[in-house]
Amino acid sequence: MEYSEIEIITHPDRYLHHIQVDNVIFGYHDKELKVLLQQTITTSKWTVTGGYVGRDESIEEAAARISSSRTGLKNLFLQQFRCFGNPDRATDAEKNPENLRKLSGIEVPEDLWIFDRFVSVGFYTLTEFSTVEIKKWSLDAACQWWPVSDLPLLMFDHKLVISEALRTLRMHIAFYPIGYELLPEKFTLPEIHALYQTILGRSLDERNFQRKLLASGIVLKLKETRPIGPHRAPYLYKFDQEKYNEGLQSGIVLAF
Amino acid sequence: MEYSEIEIITHPDRYLHHIQVDNVIFGYHDKELKVLLQQTITTSKWTVTGGYVGRDESIEEAAARISSSRTGLKNLFLQQFRCFGNPDRATDAEKNPENLRKLSGIEVPEDLWIFDRFVSVGFYTLTEFSTVEIKKWSLDAACQWWPVSDLPLLMFDHKLVISEALRTLRMHIAFYPIGYELLPEKFTLPEIHALYQTILGRSLDERNFQRKLLASGIVLKLKETRPIGPHRAPYLYKFDQEKYNEGLQSGIVLAF
Repeated sequence: MEYSEIEIITHPDRYLHHIQVDNVIFGYHDKELKVLLQQTITTSKWTVTGGYVGRDESIEEAAARISSSRTGLKNLFLQQFRCFGNPDRATDAEKNPENLRKLSGIEVPEDLWIFDRFVSVGFYTLTEFSTVEIKKWSLDAACQWWPVSDLPLLMFDHKLVISEALRTLRMHIAFYPIGYELLPEKFTLPEIHALYQTILGRSLDERNFQRKLLASGIVLKLKETRPIGPHRAPYLYKFDQEKYNEGLQSGIVLAF
Repeated sequence: MEYSEIEIITHPDRYLHHIQVDNVIFGYHDKELKVLLQQTITTSKWTVTGGYVGRDESIEEAAARISSSRTGLKNLFLQQFRCFGNPDRATDAEKNPENLRKLSGIEVPEDLWIFDRFVSVGFYTLTEFSTVEIKKWSLDAACQWWPVSDLPLLMFDHKLVISEALRTLRMHIAFYPIGYELLPEKFTLPEIHALYQTILGRSLDERNFQRKLLASGIVLKLKETRPIGPHRAPYLYKFDQEKYNEGLQSGIVLAF
């Protein structure tokens, strides 16, 4: 079950101290790559969505519970990418009990456990953002998608957290297939090409892309076309489920 | 400075609780890939070398301090690869205060902080093992190199820790140059070919390997040869320092 933030803050014995998880939830839709950020009532800055690890919970379980409580999605493929453990990753202004007391109405002690030093385990995932119903938590001022190319002012070291997650995502898509939950069942070459270009943040030669993609075996060109205008009916493609799953297990090399 | 293990155990206030670092130190020499393991006096099982994080120390500083205290090497390129945070990663038998008391002579309480639940941040590095002078710690029964293909019985989840480190190393060598500290300044094609084959744990077609390696620009073929027998004098190669460093920064794609 998910406790309210006030329950969490006032029950230090339920959680591991000094360790938390941060989920970088990337969302793709129609040539846009976004990231889910939250803003608590105590600050104007934003953070990725994260939380604490229950005493009897694995870090993976904690990441899945927290991301599901934010997005309602149960089966997000969360992957660890890095830990963040500098002693000065939170400034004094960013751990301000007085401010929390004033804005939340909770009586918190000066040495509240959540203001002690935390090492954060970063997880990332990629989903189709148009399907997500974002849930605000009790101490959230806001929780919303932001374009990765136009982020607001971030708290702690979360600018680094996001850029490291993005670097890992870009490395992983040269090694593992993506797209299954991000594209329609049958898609055009421009659609999958746009997906890869958007995530990589650079343009890819379309012929070269097509050649490598087909050589990898993870997509099949269908005989079917999709009429999109006068004299325009591009061929449709779909993923080869078996090859795709094999690729998730043992890796492929796309190297665009 | 490095405290003795007894100092560490008896000063819980100096370290972050619930979080530790584990260093998977791989060593390469002459077609052999090994890993540095330690065995404490309290058990017959082995672990990778690891330790605790000082209250004012970053996790990277802790990993560097601990690896240097084991190997004497100051500039090991330690890379995070994954966190391990299952609540049951240490069995009850593996955190046995009675045994520690008996074998070390230290009076430790039942709820000694090092026996509480720990999340471990895994770092890996690769070095030339013939240059390393291993240092045993006070509670070590042994500390030595083991072939990755023939590991002894391991404690905790360290079998997984090592296999995950190896998986990451193998992925990384398709993306980043390696070899600078592992080969002589001038080396033959069979030498660098053997290095890659040993780390990847599989054979690579030599012609294909040579072609991709030269195309990457990180090595230069010299006019010089090395006489190794009657009628045998293979050409020598060396790394292009500039291209090599560029590759470390921005990645290359070797994809052998």
